[in-house]
Parts: sequence; C-alpha cells; structure tokens
Amino acid sequence: MDSQELHKILKGKIRTISNVDNLDKDSLSLLYTPGVADVAQLCSKDPESTYSYTRRWNSIAIVSDGSAVLGLGNIGPYGALPVMEGKALLFNLFAGLDAIPICLDTQNTDEIINIVKSLEPSFGGINLEDIAAPRCFKILEELNKITNIPVFHDDQQGTAVVVTAGFLNALKVVGKESKDVKVVINGIGAAGYNITKFLIDFGVKDLILVDKNGILNKNLPGSCLHEYHTELAKMTNLENLSGDLSDALINADVFIGVSKGDILTEGMIRKMKKNPIIFALANPIPEINPIIAKSFGASIVATGRSDYPNQINNLIAFPGIMKGALERRSKITKNMLHSAIIAIANSCIPTPERILPEAYDKKLHFSVYEAVKNAS
Amino acid sequence: MDSQELHKILKGKIRTISNVDNLDKDSLSLLYTPGVADVAQLCSKDPESTYSYTRRWNSIAIVSDGSAVLGLGNIGPYGALPVMEGKALLFNLFAGLDAIPICLDTQNTDEIINIVKSLEPSFGGINLEDIAAPRCFKILEELNKITNIPVFHDDQQGTAVVVTAGFLNALKVVGKESKDVKVVINGIGAAGYNITKFLIDFGVKDLILVDKNGILNKNLPGSCLHEYHTELAKMTNLENLSGDLSDALINADVFIGVSKGDILTEGMIRKMKKNPIIFALANPIPEINPIIAKSFGASIVATGRSDYPNQINNLIAFPGIMKGALERRSKITKNMLHSAIIAIANSCIPTPERILPEAYDKKLHFSVYEAVKNAS
Repeated sequence: MDSQELHKILKGKIRTISNVDNLDKDSLSLLYTPGVADVAQLCSKDPESTYSYTRRWNSIAIVSDGSAVLGLGNIGPYGALPVMEGKALLFNLFAGLDAIPICLDTQNTDEIINIVKSLEPSFGGINLEDIAAPRCFKILEELNKITNIPVFHDDQQGTAVVVTAGFLNALKVVGKESKDVKVVINGIGAAGYNITKFLIDFGVKDLILVDKNGILNKNLPGSCLHEYHTELAKMTNLENLSGDLSDALINADVFIGVSKGDILTEGMIRKMKKNPIIFALANPIPEINPIIAKSFGASIVATGRSDYPNQINNLIAFPGIMKGALERRSKITKNMLHSAIIAIANSCIPTPERILPEAYDKKLHFSVYEAVKNAS
Repeated sequence: MDSQELHKILKGKIRTISNVDNLDKDSLSLLYTPGVADVAQLCSKDPESTYSYTRRWNSIAIVSDGSAVLGLGNIGPYGALPVMEGKALLFNLFAGLDAIPICLDTQNTDEIINIVKSLEPSFGGINLEDIAAPRCFKILEELNKITNIPVFHDDQQGTAVVVTAGFLNALKVVGKESKDVKVVINGIGAAGYNITKFLIDFGVKDLILVDKNGILNKNLPGSCLHEYHTELAKMTNLENLSGDLSDALINADVFIGVSKGDILTEGMIRKMKKNPIIFALANPIPEINPIIAKSFGASIVATGRSDYPNQINNLIAFPGIMKGALERRSKITKNMLHSAIIAIANSCIPTPERILPEAYDKKLHFSVYEAVKNAS
C-alpha cells in the first residue's frame, strides 16, 4: 500500500472518543448542563483548575502556518494538515498526549503570535512546527514572554536537542572533546540557530557558520543579516574568517549540514581533520551520500533519513520533552532541554553506526520525559 | 457522585486516540515522513483533498470566548472550557463528530472573526457557542461571508430551531395555526433574534418583542437599539404598540421567554387568550414555575430544564445539523435549518406533556442529519 491509499482508508490518523463508559442522562447532566456549571465557575475563578477538571493537563496544539513543511517549503496550511496530523499521532503514540493539529491560514508573524496567545486557555502546551525562519524565532520568543504554558518549536529546539546528543556521542566514538573540536554548520535557519547555541553550551569553542552568503563573520553587509545572524556572528567565528564552505572546512572535525543537499565534495572532506564526523541532515537529499562520505574517510555519518544508519530523528526528543514540560506546567527552559540532551546521549552506548538511541523505544521517551520533568 | 468529583476522576470528557492498528516503522513512514510528503503536496494543490486524507471531513471546532456561558454570564475562556468539552462529548456521542473545544482569550469581535477564519484549514466546520449578543450576530454573519465551511451558532440557530419545532407542535396540540396566533418574545438576544425570524418564516404575523426597555417598536430612542434591534423592529409589532411585558401579553396566544427568570405573574397569564402556550426558557430559573403556570390556566408549558416536561434542549438539533452540514460541505442555509425544524417537529406525535422528541434518541439525530443533508 502507498501513502495516499493508506491515508484514504484511514480518513484521519487520530480521532476523538468519549472518556466515559455507560453514559446515561444522569451522568450527562453532571458532565454538561446543569452539573457542569459548578465546575465552570471553579475554572473561571481559578484557571489552574482546568488542569484538574478538563483534558487541558494532557493536551497540546500543534501549530503551523505551512511555511516550511518538511523539505517541501511553503506549501500552506492545507498542505501542512496531513503532516501535523502525523505529528499528532506520534505525540499520542509515544507520550500519550492529546495533540490537536492547528494549521493557520495566515503567515503574518504578529497574527500568529496573537492567535496562539488566544489559544492558551484551551491547551496545556503548544508545539510550533514547520514555520519558516526568521519568523519562527520571533514567534517562539514572544510566546515565551506572553504565555504561561510550555511553547516548543520542534524544528528549532527538537532538532537541536537530537543533533547535540548525537554530536556528544559521536565525539565519544572518535575520542575527541567538545572544547577541542572545530565545528562547521552549513545553514543558519531554525535548526542552525539552536544547534549553535547548544553546542556552545556543551563546550564547543571553535564554531563556524556558513550559508549562501559564505562564512558568517562580523564584516558581512547588513543586508544579509537579520538580527539573529548578528547575534550568532558575535558567538562564533572568533578569528573572523571569511570565505565559502570549502574554506570553512579546513581542519574542521565536524560538519553539520542543515540546509541544501548534495553540496559536500571529496575535496572538502579531505581538508577536514582526521576521523571527521559528518551530519548530512538535508532532506530528502543529504549533503553527501553517507556511503560515499565514508569512502572519502568520514568516521561517522548521520543523516535525516531512516534508510541509513544514524538517523537524526526529532521523534527521539519531542514526545518526552513535551510530556515532561506539561507535567511541570512550566515554560520550557534551557535546563530542561540540556537535561533532555544528556538523557538521550546516555540512552545508548555509541558506536560509529549507532550514535543515537532507537526512536521507537518507549523506554527512551520515558527517560526524556523524566529528565525534563526533573530538570533543575 | 457530584459533578466536581466526576470531572476530577475523568480529567477530560474526551480524548484523542490513534486510528491505526499495529503501527510499525513501515506504516509510520507512510503516515509521517517521508510518505506523508506526497499527501501534503496533494492537499496543498487541492485543499478539498484534506477531506479525503485527513480527519477534517468529520471535525469541528467549538469556539467560545466565554462571554455568555450557560446562565453564568461572562465567566471567560477558562470557565467556558469544561462546558465546551461537554459540548464536544455530545457532538461525539450523538453525531460521531471529532469536536475540539477552542476557548479564546479574547472578546474582541474582529479578533474572534480573524482567528476563526485562520482556523478554517484545520476543521470541516465551526460551532460557535456561548458568545454574547450583539457581538455574536456580527461574528456569525462575517464568518458566513469569509469562510467556505459551515459555521453554526448554537445559541442563536440551534435554540431557535428547537423552539420553532416545539412551537409548531404546541400549536397542533391546542388546534391553532401560525398565521392566527399572537406571539410575545421576552428577550432580544442571541436566541430571540433567530426565533423571531424563524417564526415569521413559519407563518407568524403577529409578533411582539419585549426586553428591559419594554416593547420593541419604531419609536424607541436610538440609544436602546443596536442594528439588529432596528431590523427586528421593522419585522414585528405591526401596530407599533408600546408598553411593558404585561401590556404585550394582552390577548397573546404564546409567550416565549429567553431572558430573565421569575417574571411571569398570574395576572399576565390571565390576560392571554384561551389555551395559552408558555415557553419559560430562562435558566436555571424559568420565567415561571411550570406547575404554577398550569394552575393559572396554561395549556402547554416548556422550560429549559430536564426536571420538567417539554425541555427545550438544543441537543435535539445541533448534532444532526452539524453532521448534515459537514457532509454537504456547504455553508448553513435557511433551508437547511427549516428542514431540521420540520424533521424535529415530525419526529413525535405531540401531546401537552411532550411537544418534542426525546433528545437522547439516536434515531432523532439521524432524521435531523438526513433532513439537513438533503435540504434543497
């Protein structure tokens, strides 16, 4: 069966059911009018009561504007809907969450912020998804200021958590340490921004960012830079190098690609230090075919694909993070995400072909959930 | 068990589950990345495809701003949440719908309109609920203009459908006809507005509206009138009477109260024509106790309560109407609602103690659904 056929048979990957067995008039009069009036007044006076008396304690909205869906780009909210429903299914299967796809018919940053803020009373948390950069940065930042519930952007934070965990384990395999390695990240979008921050948090000193304008440095003309670029330029490229990806990779230990596929050449890999680590995460076509990368000397290769070893799969992180955050009823903090990174890295004994735990392992999701829930 | 206890045990009246049995890696790769990309592109090119490939065909949002919840008034979105969850349960139980409570943290008319418009790609229909008048009129009107999906406001349309069906059956019981009776409606809010229109559609000529300013007529100072009042003033009170409720009821055949409780006196009922019909629908305290009304000569008394005969219960109408509209994939028209009224009226052989069908009868809901689906 192909994907279209399966979707057509299911007519929805998730569905809503009643939580009540043997519903009769009496129980309905407790759960709806007139009985519910009591509970409604409680929740009105104390909004926290909604966590006890409704499903809000376990429910999240998966919010997208359809502007950066999978590798497909800006396909809009109708195109995003089957994807968000798939995401809802995964949240349900791996964390038991009640996740509702909300695909918005607007790509205006302020409108999205206002709409999500307005949804706060209905949900215990918000998972932002497939919203293009740089809009997504402002949306996440603002929502974290104006709401009191966890707001998580999987393409920023989820990807960065899994990449950082994979990075730490890959270093273990090749016997290097964060503080000693040179890392090159190609792509300064939603994922690149957060990966950069986490790698610095985990001890990386020598970090070069590259995008279509070349190496990010302090001299780039203002027109190429949005404010997040400026922030990143201050944190990276301490020697203020310029040039292209090929220049950046000279003596690099690690390459992390989160942009365009099919750009890494033999020459580039040969310029890297011994035992290079390659994260070729562009989808569906990686920056280089993993088998070819190995033949050029790469020690460890990870991709975004399930048909090669070392898949960098957000599924490793997002169910446990959101479940843990929901249970804390708090905003998502750096410490919570750091704890998730460590829990994921410690969930497997890394080998060159397996730097990350199995995404379908329910024990993994429980570990991530516990780590996030108990983070300081 | 009381309502609070039951709510606390359930922690949610509805929940989301997976539609897929035996999920493994292979089926997930069809339902999420990479397989879903195919379906996402289809839905992006043709938004109608979302009805085939996602649960949109069967899903609605129940949208409230918490401004007029039950008889409790403006208790806000957190207070509204348990009520909307109860409504979602009823939609699920009686029409199999996937209904999602969305309680908005705004009471700004334009914001509500924009938010609901933005939600259109995620849902097959919208049920507006417990939004105060006159704001609710503009919201419904605008959304019907700018969206392509059914938008239904239960407090306006649902209540009016059930009241009109009950009215038609009550007339059968007392042997009167629409064109001959004088009807007085007390309360010119969400329900009163729509009841007025339906009664006129069904042949009533002599109709008087009353609110706290007295009888609605063409001379009332502008300050008492919003634009919907002006519209109603043109359609009713042909003799341009003035006065209070007591004056209005002289020689009336039918009283319909959709405002304040405990206002109908013996004197008022005695002024009405022979075999008066009293719809005392204020909640939780009716305009008059039904037993007392009967002792003053009322032939038929209906209330909003389940502990007296003849409950005017919106549950009779809303599941079938929304299910029928969803299946048509069309906006809700006057004809669809008229068909629902006739189907409901014809679903029982009326007696003084039973002018409406049993709300918990699944056959009833199927009849309403079929009537709406097949309406011209």
